[in-house]
Parts: sequence; structure tokens; C-alpha cells
Amino acid sequence: MTNHSEDELAYLSIGEAGRLLRRGEISTLDLVNTTLARIERWNPELNAFLTVVAKRARREARIVERETRRGKWRGPLHGIPISLKDNFWTRGIRTTAGSKILADFIPKRDSEVAARLAKAGAILLGKTNMHEFAYGITTENPHYGPAHNPWAKDRISGGSSGGSAIAVATGMGFGSFGTDTGGSIRIPAALCGVVGLKPTFGLVSVAGVVPLAETFDHAGPIARGVTDACISLQAVAREHPKGTTTPDYRKLRLNNLRGVRLGWPKQYFFDHVDAELQSLFEAAARSFRPLGARVDEVSLKLPSESANPSTNIALAEATHYHQAQGYFPSRAADYGEDVRRRLELGENVRAVDYLRALAWKRQLTNEFDAAFERFDAILAPASPIPAPSIGEKEVMVAGVVETVRSALVRVNRPANFTGHPAISIPCGFTRVGLPAGLQLIGPRWGEQRLLSIALAYEEATEWHKRHPALT
Amino acid sequence: MTNHSEDELAYLSIGEAGRLLRRGEISTLDLVNTTLARIERWNPELNAFLTVVAKRARREARIVERETRRGKWRGPLHGIPISLKDNFWTRGIRTTAGSKILADFIPKRDSEVAARLAKAGAILLGKTNMHEFAYGITTENPHYGPAHNPWAKDRISGGSSGGSAIAVATGMGFGSFGTDTGGSIRIPAALCGVVGLKPTFGLVSVAGVVPLAETFDHAGPIARGVTDACISLQAVAREHPKGTTTPDYRKLRLNNLRGVRLGWPKQYFFDHVDAELQSLFEAAARSFRPLGARVDEVSLKLPSESANPSTNIALAEATHYHQAQGYFPSRAADYGEDVRRRLELGENVRAVDYLRALAWKRQLTNEFDAAFERFDAILAPASPIPAPSIGEKEVMVAGVVETVRSALVRVNRPANFTGHPAISIPCGFTRVGLPAGLQLIGPRWGEQRLLSIALAYEEATEWHKRHPALT
Repeated sequence: MTNHSEDELAYLSIGEAGRLLRRGEISTLDLVNTTLARIERWNPELNAFLTVVAKRARREARIVERETRRGKWRGPLHGIPISLKDNFWTRGIRTTAGSKILADFIPKRDSEVAARLAKAGAILLGKTNMHEFAYGITTENPHYGPAHNPWAKDRISGGSSGGSAIAVATGMGFGSFGTDTGGSIRIPAALCGVVGLKPTFGLVSVAGVVPLAETFDHAGPIARGVTDACISLQAVAREHPKGTTTPDYRKLRLNNLRGVRLGWPKQYFFDHVDAELQSLFEAAARSFRPLGARVDEVSLKLPSESANPSTNIALAEATHYHQAQGYFPSRAADYGEDVRRRLELGENVRAVDYLRALAWKRQLTNEFDAAFERFDAILAPASPIPAPSIGEKEVMVAGVVETVRSALVRVNRPANFTGHPAISIPCGFTRVGLPAGLQLIGPRWGEQRLLSIALAYEEATEWHKRHPALT
Repeated sequence: MTNHSEDELAYLSIGEAGRLLRRGEISTLDLVNTTLARIERWNPELNAFLTVVAKRARREARIVERETRRGKWRGPLHGIPISLKDNFWTRGIRTTAGSKILADFIPKRDSEVAARLAKAGAILLGKTNMHEFAYGITTENPHYGPAHNPWAKDRISGGSSGGSAIAVATGMGFGSFGTDTGGSIRIPAALCGVVGLKPTFGLVSVAGVVPLAETFDHAGPIARGVTDACISLQAVAREHPKGTTTPDYRKLRLNNLRGVRLGWPKQYFFDHVDAELQSLFEAAARSFRPLGARVDEVSLKLPSESANPSTNIALAEATHYHQAQGYFPSRAADYGEDVRRRLELGENVRAVDYLRALAWKRQLTNEFDAAFERFDAILAPASPIPAPSIGEKEVMVAGVVETVRSALVRVNRPANFTGHPAISIPCGFTRVGLPAGLQLIGPRWGEQRLLSIALAYEEATEWHKRHPALT
């Protein structure tokens, strides 16, 4: 049936897998069985999946095969096994949001993303581990156990979409969807060495997603390459506004990056970065130049305490949601300690501070919009540190002691605050083999060009071809 | 030049005045001089105007006369003297918002309403007295003195648009514009015996208006009749959304009200109403029946403490604005005591309570929308009490002691909360001659039908023809 090794099959790009499927060289059931076998083998130690729907996936594979025998192709995701973070409602499939409170919750309907993926013919393998209620960036889940970084199992995967990034990095599926309120797609993508895209606010519906903070909540793809991310995005995206370019994965490739202007922020984003990562980021910036792009310094007025106003919004909105659902404070004991503490903090945010943060959000959005008059993308770390160890609360970054949370959120939250699209792409490895993720932030509704720039970098480098050695 | 007495001229409807102008039977300068003479005579005791621009008005009158001699007619407001509440920015004319803080503020540009009225050819007589920063409902202004009710000068005019309602009620102009965040158009209209319309949220721009609480802020006309209110609305309104009827004053008159269904709320709105006013409201409801309308009870789920969540929104947004402008707390001593106290209260509203109030707003809006599937309008008091005395803080309403503020806001705030259009129309007088105002709340963007129903009532009654006896 196929001459590919299991690894070769499992690490196919979505585009390659689709071509082989259409030519009949492999079957959907091959893909499903291969990915399920890997989940069975490695999930017990990686803890990427909270729920695996093997029987359902094989049943769907057979439906797809009947369709394809009749010559019906729904598009590039048809017959492709994928996963979803466990905060996307899935009809008939437990959706815990990584919480004890929703441990037995079985939604009666699909989230919009789940419904659109099903319509595109993607095959759901299961629901991935996450930080409880997406309210944290480590995926050290107190109820279901921590997710383990496949590059070093004693380290965190990052979060909150940790399980999704692990699944994609290890060939337990060809793509996944996560959510990102303060970096929750880009952080695990960076720490696990895969691609994570937080699209423009509003482009991908969060209907049917257990919310965290609605002003900042985004849904988006995690993938092994930029083209795969674009294919996944297209399957779920709403229409782009008039006058902007709707992403098309077939038109991503540019002959070169001549005329592309990249901004290297003078302040904020590179203020405290691990020295080893810093040189990887600088090397990445340099490697855009032979492709034809210009890299110039850009000055963005981001005060170093700029995480604070956005934190006020997130704290208040999260606590409001948990109160409105009747979970908090009545079931306070059922939360992990870190989430409970943040919900308590959210009770005391003042409305005037919340409103000031919203005003500041408008100001910062204008600041970024203005920068994108002169730049096609802004470069930043997707994480200023390599994956910390599980249990580690604080890290030393460039001589400054910082909480893991603050280090990771600092560089990611701005794009949640302003709603601009931002992608994390692999840009190298530390000496001990931990991945680094470069962030590219683009103009609103500018996904097509942003992904094209990212693809040009990806094609000029080899980082995305390296996979964790699983044993 | 004219055979009309000053009173006859001053109390013409806008439509009648326009017809006489076009026929050349009166001149714009007649209208301007008549209204200015009344301001000069009665404003010292009524305190309706903070600023009068007599010279500018006469200059504009001469420009209009030149235009009209050339046969140029801009529409029904062309050459009609009007006033604006002093929180509408007027280019080159002091705009105090009733405050000490803005006592010397001369805007460099017009508010959108001022600009549209100028374009329609209306002639500005001056800027009217108001509750400081629109943050109260009595127009007992600590910096410029209280506005006096023309029906009983020791009583309040209501507010915050008190000066506008007095000006219209006394023939010191043919119309005015106010703002309404918790009843500030409808309350003074009711207490002064004129028509006040709070349109659908967003229909009339508040750009260039000193804000109070942006979630609830509306601008709208105060007039001596329903048709005049419609003419004024049309001059300043943005386009109605597709599928709804843009108001047209020439198409307001209905042959009868057959098929019109009016809702009489079983709870909340008539819970504590002054006994004398209650019988006026009931008589008004009865008098719709011979016109062909049905009046049936409607049940709206408005908890009696429903003012509280909306108060949280208003408190927080108002304090946020004054903080953001740098007025508060640095200039706390420059506020009147009541406004300062409310600004202090606003500092301590919690963000989760603000967000809960917004969620409740969506719920109540749905509740009202559902009611308007069955009803064309809901009847309510525009004020449950006749005008209280100046200085009176509490009133006894139907055996319950209530603050003046709470009594007046209670029946008006719901339409600010939901954004539905609401009009106050004269519906009778108490034995001592104080006016009563009936409120009609209608479906969103339903101004045309709402005004038509109000006009049918107006034409069947004589209340709007009575004017205060000024001496």
C-alpha cells in the first residue's frame, strides 16, 4: 500500500499527504492508523492528548475513502488527521477545557472551527491537553498532568495550547488548532519548534470556544510549516474585509523578498532575551537580507509595563466569565491554585482601570497601524527563553529574574492587545537542542503577505525539517 | 411686517414658521428678534441660557434672508432660531458643559449636531444651562445657578438638559438639542411640558459632545410638538440601517391607530408613581383606544433594582472620562459636590460588576426586542413625579420615600440601557398646574412609527397648546 516509513508518513506536509491521497499512493486510513499508533506509543509520556477518538477517526476515514473513490475531494484537508485543543466544543466529545469543572462536559454542538474543519473533511484524532481554562502559559495541568516538551521531556511544552504543539511536533496528527489570549498559540509553537499563527482578531470565529478574555481571545492553527498553517487557516477563516487579500496557500510563494521591509524593534521586545536565543534571532534577521528584504530599526512606544493594562482586561474578563457561569467562587476549590489565584485577582480590578486599558488598547493599535505604513512585518521573539523545566516558576533572563509567565506573555500580549496577526516560526536551536521561535507581527488582515514572508524564510532554512527524537 | 403678536410668533410650530417665512409674511430677523427679546426679558429669572449669541444670530439671519431672496431654501429648519445644550461643541462659542473646569473652553470645531444644524440653516441663539457635565437630573447648577421651571419658578426644570426644555417651553427659540444618558432629555421635557426624544442609540452622532458615559450617551431634540421633533431629528440623523424606515416628518400623520398595539407594563415603570400623575397616565392610555389602538398589559422582566447595573456602567465610564482628561481627581475642588461625589463613587466600581452590567444590558435589550414583536410601543411615565422644588433631595412617591434622582432615573434609564428610542410627550397637568410627561418607548430604528403614534395622541389632545404664563 505504501513504501513510506512511519516517520515519513507522519511528517508529511498536508499538501504532500493530500497529493499522495489523491494519487491513491496512500489511504486516509493509513494516515489515521499511523498517527493513532504514534499517539498510543508516545502520549503516555508526553501527555499531549486528553481524549483520543480512535474509533470515530477510523469510521470517518472509511467515509472519506468512500467519498474519494467516487472522486469527491473537499479540498486540501480532506482526509487529513488533525487535533483540537480541548477548549473547542466538539459535539458528543468531552470538552474539558483542561478543567475539573468541565471534566464531564459533552457539548451538544460543535464550535464553529470544529464544524468548519469537519466540513473541510479533516479527521479529528482527539482533544489536546492545555493549561486549565487556557489561563496560563505552561500546560502544567493540575488535573490531567503536565504536558511534556518532546525535545526535553522534563521541560514544559508552553501553553496554553501545549498539547496541540506537541501533537504537531511529534507527528501525532498533521495540524491542530489552539487559542491565543496572551501568546497561547505562539508560545507552545516556539517551545516545541513548530509554526503557530494567531490571526487578525475576528478572522477565525471563537464561537463555541470556552472563553478566557473575550477582548483578546483568538483561535488559530498550529502546523509544521507555513503552507500547512495557511491551508488550515483557510478552512476555518471568515471572509476577509473588502480591500484586503484573503489568504490563499497556492499563492504564498514569492520569487524573492525585494521591497519587503522588516522592522526590528529598538525597545521592549528584545529588552530581556536569553543570550543564546538573542543570537539566533539576530541571525534570523540577517538571513532575511540575502532574500531581498530590508531590516530596519523601528521605534514602537511600548512602555515596559505595557503588559499591565492588558492584564487588567484579561483578569477582569476571565473572572467575569467564571462568575457568570456560576463556577467561581462557588467551586473555587475545584480550580488549580494558579488559576484560582488569578480569578481572585480579577475580582479586584477597578472598572476605571479596565476602561483605561481599553483606551490604551486603541492607542497602541494606532501605534502599530502607523508602523505598518512603513513595515511589512515586525520581528520579535515568540519566546525570549527556551523551554523552562516543569515546575520552574522564575527564570534568569539576560541578568534579570523574571517569572516564566511574565517572560513569555511580555512579547506575545501586544498582538493580542492590538489584534494584529502574529506568527511564530522555528528559527534555530540552542546548544542543548531546544527550539527557538521567531515572531513576525503583520498588519491587520495582512495574513497573505505575512505568511509569504514567513514561507520565504522557512524555505531558506532547515529548522522546520528537524523533529524531536522520540524513544 | 407681521400681524402676529410676540407670543403668537414665538409659539409657532417650526412648520408654520417655515411656511410664513417662505411666503414672506414674516422674516427670519423677526423670528430672531422675537426670540432674543424673550431671552432678554425672561432669562434673568429662568436661567435657561448660559451664553447668548445675539449678534451672531442677527448676522446669520441677514445671511439667510439674502439666500431666501435668491429663492434658496435649505429645508424646514432654514432660518429657524434654535438653541443647543452647552455640552455640544460650538466652534468659536464657549462650551462649558455647565462646569467650572470648562468655563473658558472655546472649541475649535463644531460637534456633528451643531455642524448639521448649521448646514440645515438653523440659527443658533445660544447655549443652554445644564446639570454640571450632564451628571445629574435637576439642573441645579452650582457654578451658573439653578434653572427655573417656567410653570413654577421655585421648582426644578429637570435635567440635565434643563435649559433646553425651558427655552423651548417659553418660546425662547423653536427647538433645542439635548443629551440623554439616563433621562436627561425626557425628564426636563416632562417637567417643562414639552416633547423630548431620545432616538435609537447611534442614530444621532455624539461626536463633539462632552461625554458622560459613552455606552448610554444619546443626543436628541427637544421641541414643542412631535412634528417639530421629527423635523429636528431629520436634520441631524445619520442614515437608518437598511430595512428600517428613515423618519420623514411629512409622512407622520396616520388616518387612525387601528392595528397599533401599546403595552402597559405590569411591573417596574408604574410601581411608584405620584397618584395625581398616575391618573393622568391612565387617562392618556385610555385616550389611545378611541383612536383605534389596543392597550394591553405587557410583562417585562425588569427587577426593581435594575437601575443598579446601569449605574455601575455610568459611574465607571464617567469617572474614567474625567480621569483620562486629567480633570479628576486633580481638580476635584472645582466640581459641585454632587458631581464630585459621583466621580468618587465611580473610582470604586469593580470591573467584574461593570462587565456583568454589560451582560445584563444584552439580556434586557433582548427582552425589549422580544416585547416589540408584539407591541408597537410601551407606555411609561417620563417622570413619576411632578417637578420637585429646587433644593428638594427626596420625595414621597406613592407612600415611598425616594431620592429625586432615583425617582426620575428609574423610569428613563431602561431605554438608555437598551438603546431603544423613547419620547416624552405632554399628557396633562396637576391641579397646581405642573405638566406631566408620558413616555413611549419603541423598537430600535422605529422612530417613524413611534413619532406617528405620538402625533396621533398629540392631535387628539390639547396639552401641547398650553404655555407657561410668564410675568
